[in-house]
Formats: sequence, C-alpha cells, structure tokens
Amino acid sequence: MRKIKILAITGIRSEFDILYPIINALRNNHRFDVKLVLSGAHLSDWHGSFINKIKEEGLVIADCIDSLLMTNRTTQRVKAVGLLSIGLAQTVEREMPDILFVIGDREESISTALVGNYMNILVAHFGGGDTVYGNADDPIRFAVSKLAHIHFTSADEYAKNLINTGEEEFRVFNVGNPSFENILKEPIINLDSLSQELDFDISEGKYIVLLKHPLSSEKEDSFHQMNVTLKGIQKFIDLTGFKVIGIYPNTDPGSYDILNAIKNYQNKSYIKFFKNLPRNLFINVMRNTKALVGNSSMGILEAPFYKLPVINIGNRQKGRLNAGNVKFVDYDSDKIAELISEACLDEDYRKSISGISNPFGDGNTSLKITDILENIDYSDQKWYVKRKLC
Amino acid sequence: MRKIKILAITGIRSEFDILYPIINALRNNHRFDVKLVLSGAHLSDWHGSFINKIKEEGLVIADCIDSLLMTNRTTQRVKAVGLLSIGLAQTVEREMPDILFVIGDREESISTALVGNYMNILVAHFGGGDTVYGNADDPIRFAVSKLAHIHFTSADEYAKNLINTGEEEFRVFNVGNPSFENILKEPIINLDSLSQELDFDISEGKYIVLLKHPLSSEKEDSFHQMNVTLKGIQKFIDLTGFKVIGIYPNTDPGSYDILNAIKNYQNKSYIKFFKNLPRNLFINVMRNTKALVGNSSMGILEAPFYKLPVINIGNRQKGRLNAGNVKFVDYDSDKIAELISEACLDEDYRKSISGISNPFGDGNTSLKITDILENIDYSDQKWYVKRKLC
Amino acid sequence: MRKIKILAITGIRSEFDILYPIINALRNNHRFDVKLVLSGAHLSDWHGSFINKIKEEGLVIADCIDSLLMTNRTTQRVKAVGLLSIGLAQTVEREMPDILFVIGDREESISTALVGNYMNILVAHFGGGDTVYGNADDPIRFAVSKLAHIHFTSADEYAKNLINTGEEEFRVFNVGNPSFENILKEPIINLDSLSQELDFDISEGKYIVLLKHPLSSEKEDSFHQMNVTLKGIQKFIDLTGFKVIGIYPNTDPGSYDILNAIKNYQNKSYIKFFKNLPRNLFINVMRNTKALVGNSSMGILEAPFYKLPVINIGNRQKGRLNAGNVKFVDYDSDKIAELISEACLDEDYRKSISGISNPFGDGNTSLKITDILENIDYSDQKWYVKRKLC
Amino acid sequence: MRKIKILAITGIRSEFDILYPIINALRNNHRFDVKLVLSGAHLSDWHGSFINKIKEEGLVIADCIDSLLMTNRTTQRVKAVGLLSIGLAQTVEREMPDILFVIGDREESISTALVGNYMNILVAHFGGGDTVYGNADDPIRFAVSKLAHIHFTSADEYAKNLINTGEEEFRVFNVGNPSFENILKEPIINLDSLSQELDFDISEGKYIVLLKHPLSSEKEDSFHQMNVTLKGIQKFIDLTGFKVIGIYPNTDPGSYDILNAIKNYQNKSYIKFFKNLPRNLFINVMRNTKALVGNSSMGILEAPFYKLPVINIGNRQKGRLNAGNVKFVDYDSDKIAELISEACLDEDYRKSISGISNPFGDGNTSLKITDILENIDYSDQKWYVKRKLC
Repeated sequence: MRKIKILAITGIRSEFDILYPIINALRNNHRFDVKLVLSGAHLSDWHGSFINKIKEEGLVIADCIDSLLMTNRTTQRVKAVGLLSIGLAQTVEREMPDILFVIGDREESISTALVGNYMNILVAHFGGGDTVYGNADDPIRFAVSKLAHIHFTSADEYAKNLINTGEEEFRVFNVGNPSFENILKEPIINLDSLSQELDFDISEGKYIVLLKHPLSSEKEDSFHQMNVTLKGIQKFIDLTGFKVIGIYPNTDPGSYDILNAIKNYQNKSYIKFFKNLPRNLFINVMRNTKALVGNSSMGILEAPFYKLPVINIGNRQKGRLNAGNVKFVDYDSDKIAELISEACLDEDYRKSISGISNPFGDGNTSLKITDILENIDYSDQKWYVKRKLC
Repeated sequence: MRKIKILAITGIRSEFDILYPIINALRNNHRFDVKLVLSGAHLSDWHGSFINKIKEEGLVIADCIDSLLMTNRTTQRVKAVGLLSIGLAQTVEREMPDILFVIGDREESISTALVGNYMNILVAHFGGGDTVYGNADDPIRFAVSKLAHIHFTSADEYAKNLINTGEEEFRVFNVGNPSFENILKEPIINLDSLSQELDFDISEGKYIVLLKHPLSSEKEDSFHQMNVTLKGIQKFIDLTGFKVIGIYPNTDPGSYDILNAIKNYQNKSYIKFFKNLPRNLFINVMRNTKALVGNSSMGILEAPFYKLPVINIGNRQKGRLNAGNVKFVDYDSDKIAELISEACLDEDYRKSISGISNPFGDGNTSLKITDILENIDYSDQKWYVKRKLC
Repeated sequence: MRKIKILAITGIRSEFDILYPIINALRNNHRFDVKLVLSGAHLSDWHGSFINKIKEEGLVIADCIDSLLMTNRTTQRVKAVGLLSIGLAQTVEREMPDILFVIGDREESISTALVGNYMNILVAHFGGGDTVYGNADDPIRFAVSKLAHIHFTSADEYAKNLINTGEEEFRVFNVGNPSFENILKEPIINLDSLSQELDFDISEGKYIVLLKHPLSSEKEDSFHQMNVTLKGIQKFIDLTGFKVIGIYPNTDPGSYDILNAIKNYQNKSYIKFFKNLPRNLFINVMRNTKALVGNSSMGILEAPFYKLPVINIGNRQKGRLNAGNVKFVDYDSDKIAELISEACLDEDYRKSISGISNPFGDGNTSLKITDILENIDYSDQKWYVKRKLC
Repeated sequence: MRKIKILAITGIRSEFDILYPIINALRNNHRFDVKLVLSGAHLSDWHGSFINKIKEEGLVIADCIDSLLMTNRTTQRVKAVGLLSIGLAQTVEREMPDILFVIGDREESISTALVGNYMNILVAHFGGGDTVYGNADDPIRFAVSKLAHIHFTSADEYAKNLINTGEEEFRVFNVGNPSFENILKEPIINLDSLSQELDFDISEGKYIVLLKHPLSSEKEDSFHQMNVTLKGIQKFIDLTGFKVIGIYPNTDPGSYDILNAIKNYQNKSYIKFFKNLPRNLFINVMRNTKALVGNSSMGILEAPFYKLPVINIGNRQKGRLNAGNVKFVDYDSDKIAELISEACLDEDYRKSISGISNPFGDGNTSLKITDILENIDYSDQKWYVKRKLC
C-alpha cells in the first residue's frame, strides 16, 4: 500500500513546539511517510540552529530554505515569503507529497498555502479561525485559511469562525492544542535541578517568565514598549525579590529594538535572558512560574493548561479567546507592576485562575489529526477544489 | 498640499483594461500622484510587450518586475508570486506610496496584498467577493480580500459576500465594473474598416469571438478541451459560414497546450487568431459579434453590458453571478455547436438577452473610486489595522 | 567504497548534447553516482520540454530550477543567474556532491561556479579558454574558469589560454569535444527516411542548415540581421532550388526578434523551421547538408568533424579558433548568397574543406574525463583552494 | 550637457570606507550624477544600520536590496549573489546609468559585474589584480575583473597582473588606495578624548587593535582559530598590561563562531569589542595603536600608510603584496604573543617599519578616478565589448 506523503514546513521554534507532537504521531503510524522543510529562524545560529537537533531525532529533512533576512526593516517578512514560495515550489515538485502540513500565521504558513493552491497539493493547516488582531500575522492567518484545504483548529469557537467566513464544513476539524502533549509527556524537573541547569537560582519558586514580541503595527514603539515593560517588572521585583526568566523575542521587525532595550537590564542579577530554552527546561519553567508576562500567544493558548495567570501588555493578542487567565494592560509601568503583583501574590485571584476551564482541548490532538489524515480519500476532487468560498 | 501617492500594480492585459479607467481618473485629479509597476505578461514580447504603450500614454513606470517564467509547469505561478513579493517590496520601500492599488485575483494581486500587509501600506483592491470557483485564482481572490484594507466590488452581491466573510463594513464599496467606461468612450468603427484593420473579412457581421483559458484544476485536459471546443465551433461554421475571431489564452499553466490545439486550426480560412487586439479594435469586435464563446470572465462581467449571448464551455466561471446572458455547456462538440447556433441565429433567444439587466453598474466606477480615495483620512489607524477578521 | 557524487547542471539543448556523452560515461562507471539539475529552456515547453526525455533515459533528476523569464529584455539572463544561484544552493546543500559538473558559458555555468566557490564544492567545467568574443557569454566563460577548480578544454590552444590567464597547470586538461561521440554512435538514416521523418523532402541532398542566434552586444539589430540573412539565403535558393532546414534560435534577448523575422518566411515551401530536432535526426541532417549557415558555435566546434563548410554571418563566433572550414561574412545579402554558393557548389573549395584537420580531438573525450575524475584525490586541499590566480 | 550617471553599489562598511572618497569626489564634480545602492550588512541593524547615515550625508539612495541572510551556513553568500542580481537588475533597468561602480570582491562586486555584463552597462571596478588567496572572495575578485570594463587598481603590480590575465591595457588604471584620503582629511583626536568617546581607557597609548574575519576554506575551524588568537593576545596582555580594541568580524559564514569565541573574553577588563567604530574614531584608533592583529585586509592595504606593524594570523591575506610591515603567523598562541610583543615593544623592529615605502599610492586616488571617468567616450564600443579575454 502506497504511503501517504506528508511534507511539513516549519520556520521558528514556537511553531515547531506545536508541530512536533503531530509530526511524531504521524511518523509513528506506518501509513505515513513524513519529511520536514526547515526555514527561517531554524537556520539561524543566532536563534539556536535547529538542523542538528532535527537530525538527532531521526527526522528527515527534505530541504533547508533560507528565508530570514538580517534586517529590522519592514521588507524582511514579505521578502521571506518570496524566498519561501520559490524554494518550496522547487521542493514540492520533487517530493510530490499528498499533504503539505503547516501551522499558524507566519511567512511559512502563507507560502505553503500559496504553493499548495497553485500546485494542486492539499494543504492541511493548523491554527485557523483565531480572532486575535493587530499584528501582520492576523490577516495572514485568515488568508491562509482561504487557501488551505483542510483546517485543524484549537478551539470550537475557531472552527465556527472558519465556517462563518465561508469555508465548507467538511474541511473543518476542531482538534485542540497539540502542544499540551509535549507538556504531558515531559518528565518533571524539580526547582533545584532546574536552577542548576539554567545556572540561575529559582529554587524558591519565586519567579515570573517574560516573553515579549514586537507588534508590526506598532513597530516604531518597540524599544519604548519593552522599556516600560522592564521598568514595570523592576518595580515589582524591587518590592518582592522575585526573579525573572526572559526569553528573546522572535525575529520580526522590531525585535532588534526589543533586544536593545533588554541590554540595559542584562546585567541585573534578578533577571536572566535566554535565546531559547530546550523544551524540557522550558516546560518545567512554565510549570513552576507564578505568572507569564509579555504578549506571547502562549499566554492565551497554553497558559490555560498550566492554569497560569498571564499579564498581557499592549495590543498584541487582543481579540483572542480568553480562557479567563489573561489580564490586559497598557504600557504603564505602575499598572504592570500592580497586575504582576496580583497574579503572583493575591491568593484569591490565583485560586480563581486555577479553576478555569480550558477551551483548547484535552491533549489528544495529534491522534485526532492522524486519524483524519489517514481516512481522507485522496482521489476525491472535493478536497482539491473549493466550491464555496464565502 | 501633499499629494496622495498611488502605486498601481498590473501584470496582464485583461487586468489593465479594467485598471485603465481608474488610473486615468486618478491622474486627472490633481490630488493624486500615480505610478505603475509592470510585471508578468506585460513584459513579455510573446504577449505583446506593453512598456512602450504605457510610456506613450505618459504614465509613469516606477519599476518593471519580471515574474513570468517560460514554463507550462505548475511551479510557474507561485514562483511568480515569489519574484513579485521580493521585487515589489524593493519598489515600495523606495516609493512609500499611500495606497497600493491592484485588481483581480492573479499573482500580482496576492503579492501586492502581501507587501501592503507586511509593510503597513494600505492596499485598495478591486474585484473581491466574486463567487466563481474552480481555478487557482479563486481562493487567491478571497485571500487578497483578507489582506486588503479597502475593497471595491463590481456588484452589490459581491460587496455583501465580503461583509459576510468578516470584512468590516466601512472598508467595502460597491462601485461597478470600470471597464464599461472604456467601451462608452471608444469611437465606433464600422465593419468594413474593422475588416481592413484586422486583415480579416467580417464585413457581413456574421462572426463569433473565441476566448478560452486553461483551468488550473483541469490543467492536464487543456489540449483535449480546446480541441473539443474548436471541433464544436467547426460544426457550427460548416453549417453557417460564420467567421471566428480567436484570442490567445493567458499565460497560465495549460496555455501551452491550448496554443498547441490552436495550431491545427490556424490555417483554416474561417478563423483568425490574435495574440491581443488593441483596445479600439477589440471593443468594436465585441460590439458586433453575435456571440462570445469560451470561458473568459468577460462573458460574465462585460458581456451583459453589450447584451451579448455567451456560451461558457466547461467549469471555468462556474459559481459566478450570471446576468442571464450566459449558458454553460460541457465538453461536447455537438452541444457546443447547438448552443452557438441558438445564440447567433435564434431571434427569440437573442431578443431575451437584449432585455437583461446588468448587475455590474452603469459605467461611473472610476469617479466613485477617485472620490472615495480622496476622502480617506490617511492618518486614521482604523484603516491600517483590521479589528475584525471573521 | 563510497561513490563519487556528481551533480551535473544543464539549461539548454545545445549544451546537453555536449554534456550527454560525459554523463553517460560517468554513469556507466560504477565508481560514480550521477544526478542532473534541469533549468532554463529545458523546462520550457516552448523549447521542447526535456523532463520526460531525461526520465526515459533513466537519468536521475535532483531538482528542476525554473530560470527562464519570458521576456526579450536585457534583465532576462542576469535574473536567471539570480534564480539559479538561489535554487542550486538549495539543491547542493541537500545533495552534497563531490563534483559540480557544468558546460559552457551560459547562466547555469556561472551560477554553478558561484555555488561551488562559496560552498566549497569542486566545480569541473568543460569549455573554457575559448577565444570567441562579442557576446555576453564570452566574459562569463572566463569568469567561470576563474571560479572553477578543474578545467576540461576542447582544444590544446584553449588549455594554454587558461594557463596563461593564471590557472594552475595541474587543473587544466585538454580532452577534445565530447559531442563527436554522439555523432560516431548515431546510426545512419538515409535521405529518403530522413525526408519522411522531417516531413520535408531533402531526398536529393541539396539543402543547407540555418542556425542563427542573437548577439547580446547587437541585440537591437537582431530582426534586421535575420532579415538580411534570410534574404541572402533566398537569393541562393532562387538560383539553385536548394532546400533549407532552419532551427529556432536560443532563448537569449533578441531571440524574439529573430522569430519575428522568421515568420515572413515560414510559409515558403523551400524552408522548414524546427524548434529542436531529436538528436538522431539532427546528426543525420548535419551529415548530409552541403553547408551550415548562421552563427552557431557548431560551425566552429562540430563542423570540422563533419568536414562541413560554414558561412558565419556577423560578429558572433569572431575570435574563435577556426579549423579552416569557416568563412565570415557581414550582413550583406549578396555576399551571403555568394559564399553559400561557393560552399555548396564549388567543388574545389569543398575538396579543400574535406582535407582540414580537426583541432577538437578524436572523439575519446568522455573516457578521458571519467578517468581524470576517478583519479582525483578528493581529500587533497590543493583542489579546493587556488593558490595562484594570475 | 547630459550628466554622466554613476550608480555605486555597496554592501559592507569596510567597503564603503574605500568607496566614500570616490563617491565624494564624483558628486563634487558637476559632470556626474551619483546614486547609491545599499545592500548586505548596511541594511542590518545588527551591524549598525547605515541608511540614516547615508541620508544625513545627502547621498541619494537609488534602492535598498536586502541580501544578508541570517545564517552561518555556506548557502548564505551565494544566495546573496542571487538576491542582488535580481534586485539590482530591477534598479539598473530603471536608472539606466552610464557606469556601475563597485569595489572589491564580495557578493555585491560579482553581482554588479554580472548585471553590467548582461545588461550592457559599463562596470568600473576598484580592487582587481590582488594576489591574496584562500578565501571565497579571491576567485570572485578575478571573476569580477573578467566581467568588468574599467579596472582601477591600488598598486602597480596589481595592474600588471590584470594585463597578464588577458585584460586589454587601455582598460587598466593604477590609482592607489582611496582610503588614504579618509585618513588624511580626518582631524586628530587625542588619546584622552578618544578614551572618553570609546568609554575605554587607552590614554597611555598602550593598546593593540584586533580585527579577525572567518576564512571560507577553513570555516569549520573559525571558533578554534579565534580562541587561539584570543589566548595568544591574553598571554601578551598578561605580561604587558596593554589594552585591546576589538572589532566584530564581517558577516560571512563562520562569523557566528568567531562571535561565540569572543563571548568568553567580553567581560575581561583589558578588551573592549565594537560592532563598528565611526570613521573618525576608527582612524584615530589606528593612528595610535601599536599594532594591528588578526587577518583584516587593512593590515596589507592601509597599515603601510600608518607605518603600522601587523601580525596576520592564519592563511587569510596570504599571497598578497606585503609592503614589509606584515608578519604572518600560524595558530600558535605562544608565537602570536611573541610577534605582538616584537611589534609593540621592539624599537628596532618598529623603526624598520616606520621606514617602509608604501606601494599603494599617495592618497590622490579619487581625483584620478574622477578624471578618467570624465574623459571616457561613452559612445565608443571598444569599452563595451572585450575583444581580448586572455
């Protein structure tokens, strides 16, 4: 029996963490033949090169497509789409997969959807229907859904959104968030060992995690916004003696400015920044942190699983489904300090968060996806031609 | 007062015919500064190079971006998107327009929308909301609408479709089809002069027009489909002595096969093929033809204005708003001959067509667009950030 | 024992005819593992798509890289170099060959040499040291030699030229012209069968072959030059009743104009144009023609093997090693007619040509190349770093 | 009188320092109209974005072409050539300059030469004929010379080398090194002010400068090589209490590893690293340093002007004209320490260096170049077509 050929495209670590359980479930099923295309930050040593890690895992790399330009200008991302479209078309013509699999709303997502559309290859997309707005990624996410043939969503509400925008119902599957599987499987590391691994003492468990990315529509303010954020955190630290684990921003325009703002705090003893943390460390850091601060989508999509309070600063993530664990705050250092304080120290508030229900599923996602992809009739034209677009 | 800078992107003649009245209205208004970017088939001598014609008209060319690869493979169009995204980002960074203006659902449409999205430049798009399906262009059209900031539609129904898919109402303007303005302004040429200009005798007015493009989802059948079409036409001709004016297909994959099928008919005296006809000849050919045969969007979008019967062969244009002048037929040469016969010779049928009402407006489009673009507050952030995407 | 991995890059038919015997000899030797990269005109149906032919031969295609833009502008070729450099780097990173093998002086030649130089992969180049000038290809050929690590030349004089320009002697091997092997191996087809296959009566053997390409430095004159050429030929035909087998030009800027000039002669019964001829037909056409007319490099490089008189019109091929069979003539239709006449009908002149000696070897080229590549010590750094460049 | 249009292409700071005096002399001459194209590291904030600085100087930017990919892999530079060739062809078609001006042997040099060759635009190149070998740049430099039409060299020997490789004599002009003009014009800053500006105390004048780049043929050893270098320096520092001013490496593959090696030394008080130094500071740092250590071309090309001892570590710069001020040393930390010691402290040796004669001219370069470009007959075909290539 001919195997079902899957070609999965990935460009950044945050995306790969979601993709990984799916890839793993697919390759553990003998019906599938899975290969990866690496691009973007995965190929940048500045962001922790990924190629060797992938090879160690025994994953097959179909091609590496350079797409990340070293600039902070707004040309960066759309030229990446250009490079990916050209490079990926070359790969796809050779590999002729049955499915192109892609996650999210970044350059690789839209490029993959374009390649599938023009080359008549089914595109399976995870992550559509999400209502967040304000970033260049957001219209992209809906454009990807218009081009993709099979939609996997992380929440029921998102599935409904796709159908409302005109997608045929038979293409839409709510499967929940696959990244919970990483968490469930990850062995526990206690705080002492974690402190050692990180070379940073968080053994008392009094720490927060900071993850802040630029917002394309407010790119020019990136430096200032990060400064206010760090000042707000410092106010909280000054009063409480907490520690801070910071993660570097993604590679989008404005990230250079955020890194610049970070520099002024890099020598403070209460804070330590990491380019990337290995998954095992990151998950254990998240399990024990008192709060997540910044504007990462993790606050919306994963924190409910950890029952973790989130302080989302600024407009990024606005419009997104809020499980109840996220408070939004403007760029006001006093308010930021106050909300972090509440999240970390107000036991009533913390109790209310621990009781929220999680709209993003139960961690069974990858098997659902595998099942669906295994049972598609790949010769049925209904999958290839959308007879209804609105 | 600073002028409003418009950068319009175009890649193919059929698109430019729609764009032209708008461009003209904009540059006749002193508030606007208009430049063009040429790409795709406009730069191909094989398709009648366009650069000199543009320069004669006094239009300013900001840049020429090569994007049309000489191949019949499915890699062709998505690599064109890649080249356009990279080249146009370079142009836009230099020109920094207030508006990127683009038409339709082709490579230049999606590339322009991507550049605007990632570079924070407003994209005004004409042609969204159209329900036709089956071609690679169709999902692209909706993806473009998801990315564009200002929507001009050619029919009221199309405007409603965009709002239904989640676009904010204030962004959507139904303005009708601008190409009617070309027709209204074009002086009449009588059939004798037309015959001379074409070097092809249609002085008796007994002729049809053939315009047939490949369909991406049926690319492999392109040769066969064109063959059946030409055979059907021949059957009609054999009985009636009509003439046929054929126009070459667009540049999409499959066009090579259509051209191949044409070869076998190129020496017949009843048919003459043209790469492109100058606008003045084409409009007068359309004014006098008895029917339009093939699968061009012109049958849907412009023929109602001419009150012209259309025989649409195959699946291209399916799903589109039908003013009542279009009959769809499968690849069956007898049926094709029969329907052409009805359209050309059945006076009752012809009378019914002459009475249809045209859903695509009254030919006042370009002034409506100019007016809207003149009155936008370009400093209002609501235009740049979509706060509602579904 | 690990095989020596060869990746050969080709973009046009004329080049592949030279490459083919080498590729064949390499894959018949168990020490080598050979793959092809196809680009340029090989991927254009307009030029006789090559992919299927390659697959039928059982050759392995590593990747197809679209590089031929459909335009007659001077941007065409340098953008092709851009596309090839990007696409080929992607292929080479995956394949990691021991040798990149490339022929000639076209876009694929320089792109391959650039990829090898920057990625530390040995480039073996056939065709350097040739003294012809006037075309954009000519400086490219020497630039390629400056970048390539192993040089195979077709004549002793060319080998010396490379050493004179500073190349280290151990890198330079004169091996002769491999295309003679195609000729030697090709079974004879008699003129009657040939006429049938071509659907063109040359059974009396009274015909010439016309092969004319544009010259980049005289691109603007391409139409005129082809016109004069065809007029000169017509004068000869009018007097002698000869036939003409014409081959379409290559894809370079100006080729569109040459095709345009051809149109006016396409209906004449004495001439028939072919896009490309299958190798078996082409070789037998060349074996029997009375003369080769135009400006193809074949006149210089292959015609001496056939002992064939050549009339080279215009400046292309100037500066090249002349075995004595080539007469150069300006764009003067009378002179052209006169020289063709002499070449076809003057028995003394024809006799003198039949006695020339051929500086391009004896047809043993491919085995020489195989032998050299088999005996290189691929771990010796001397091959990778040029310690002498001038 | 029509101005002579010059388009100068630049991609990295080191190159711009050489280009700047020429650009300045050209724009101060009313006969010329000068524009710049920025690419590569100039567009990277990580390397000190250059766009604003250029605009402040009143220089006109024709286009910005992103070409620097954020990766440490060997695909980086050849893909940059691809992006530059495509982007620059777009610029050149619009600008139609009389001269493309470019410096050196990097991606922008070869891309510019390719664009000029294929688009029939004269390429004036500064920096050919240099005999250094071992880096990917070196074959590129000679390939550029094969393609360029006008050669400006920095030394008489280099001019002779170009003629020996086959370049026509009338194209070759020895003009010396233009960067000396920057030095001559730069006001003196005393060591106290310099220390303040640098926020690093070098007021006693006891310091060396470290400038070390990766070598493509030894890329894998970059980390180790930098480590040995830094260890060697440390040994010297331990004995003498000198200071070290380090400059970050260029952007080539391997630079990431060098930066990694630097990290372990970044907190030492005796050393301070700078991404880039503004020209005024850099020149005054060079005027007062006791020695230059590393493998920068500055040691060969500029240090003779400062009469500065140079310790060149490793194989980069091997083969280059040595004015007598450069000592080569292998990766041996003891030897490195010893040679730095000699260069800084051995007064006899220092005296001998101060007496060397400088083969790179007297600092009058830019006017010579202006003069030559002003007096070229741009309508003379001899400049465009090389009639002799070897």
